[in-house]
Amino acid sequence: MTLSPTPRSTIKRGKNRAATDRSELYAVLDAGLVCHLAVVVDGAPVVLPTGYGRDGDTLYLHGSTGARTLREAAAGLPVSVAVTLLDGIVYARSVFDHSMNYRCAVVHGVATPVTDPAAKSHGLRVLVEHLSPGSWDYARQPTPRELAATAVLALDLTEASVKIRTGPPSDEESSSAWAGVLPVVTTYGTPEPCPLLAEGTAVPEHVSGRR
Amino acid sequence: MTLSPTPRSTIKRGKNRAATDRSELYAVLDAGLVCHLAVVVDGAPVVLPTGYGRDGDTLYLHGSTGARTLREAAAGLPVSVAVTLLDGIVYARSVFDHSMNYRCAVVHGVATPVTDPAAKSHGLRVLVEHLSPGSWDYARQPTPRELAATAVLALDLTEASVKIRTGPPSDEESSSAWAGVLPVVTTYGTPEPCPLLAEGTAVPEHVSGRR
Repeated sequence: MTLSPTPRSTIKRGKNRAATDRSELYAVLDAGLVCHLAVVVDGAPVVLPTGYGRDGDTLYLHGSTGARTLREAAAGLPVSVAVTLLDGIVYARSVFDHSMNYRCAVVHGVATPVTDPAAKSHGLRVLVEHLSPGSWDYARQPTPRELAATAVLALDLTEASVKIRTGPPSDEESSSAWAGVLPVVTTYGTPEPCPLLAEGTAVPEHVSGRR
Repeated sequence: MTLSPTPRSTIKRGKNRAATDRSELYAVLDAGLVCHLAVVVDGAPVVLPTGYGRDGDTLYLHGSTGARTLREAAAGLPVSVAVTLLDGIVYARSVFDHSMNYRCAVVHGVATPVTDPAAKSHGLRVLVEHLSPGSWDYARQPTPRELAATAVLALDLTEASVKIRTGPPSDEESSSAWAGVLPVVTTYGTPEPCPLLAEGTAVPEHVSGRR
């Protein structure tokens, strides 16, 4: 199935960077950890970072039931969600052609509150397993009260676009200047135990082995 | 000077994570590389990643003069800009208290097109020096035609908020489970020369020494 079924999800600038296969959308969403969610509040845009998770063609978002942005998003108003991965700084011969290598997915749609308890628990599991794979079965699962305090939204991935830039700078002018790409690399550091842990508590494999 | 002069830039959820000093806003903006810019197009929010740079209390944004999002932002409509740095995954004893350590700045306002040639050149310099410090003087500077093809917007940083989470998980319940923080670390890799470079072109210090 291909991407970009509507005008607003069709990339017009830099078409050569537009991905057209749905698998590329999944790959970007699965590689990111934070999304930026935009809603309209009192006629003005508000953008905030939040966690997310993907299951098939559904993107799950969550947050406190008291958060206004989430309430607006849950009220059936249109939302836009972007997930961006920065891969490198592109140094060109000209200032004008300096750029970034990146992968970016943008989703448009209307989010639906997930209220059915089983469906909500599933959505939370997807969210938690995206943020911290292995945690759902390892940590204590939500109580009914915790479930009630969490809003889960589902956003359909039908209307989405993906833009990807890779490779060296695009300018070819004659120059003695260095040009190329400085990769931006994101990795995990050494786990930092909570000070309240009993001494000798081992770091579980789903944390220590995370790559 | 303190932050949060208006209701929409005053953090209501997680007040204990709200930074109140303007220097913390500068620090987050200066540490990030990509911002997410949200505008309202046909009544719906659109969020896209873009480069930026800061000079004092002005945030500069730029892009092609043909990009619709930028045209909307330049038309005097309200915008929202977020810069988010992910610092760690917070593994708690409970799924509910899993979280992220992050620093996030959100700016609200109306962007102004920078059209005066000297001011535009200054704004571009700020943008380029944020993306790639040292490049403005090292690479070829923009021609009048390149300047004309680039839209530069200025956004005042008056109306902004900063939210920061640091430290271990917040749950204290009795558990034998491991809890703590897995740091997320972003670094630069080994510079990748453009294939068109003359053999032996040295990597300049502003690239090889970047940290």
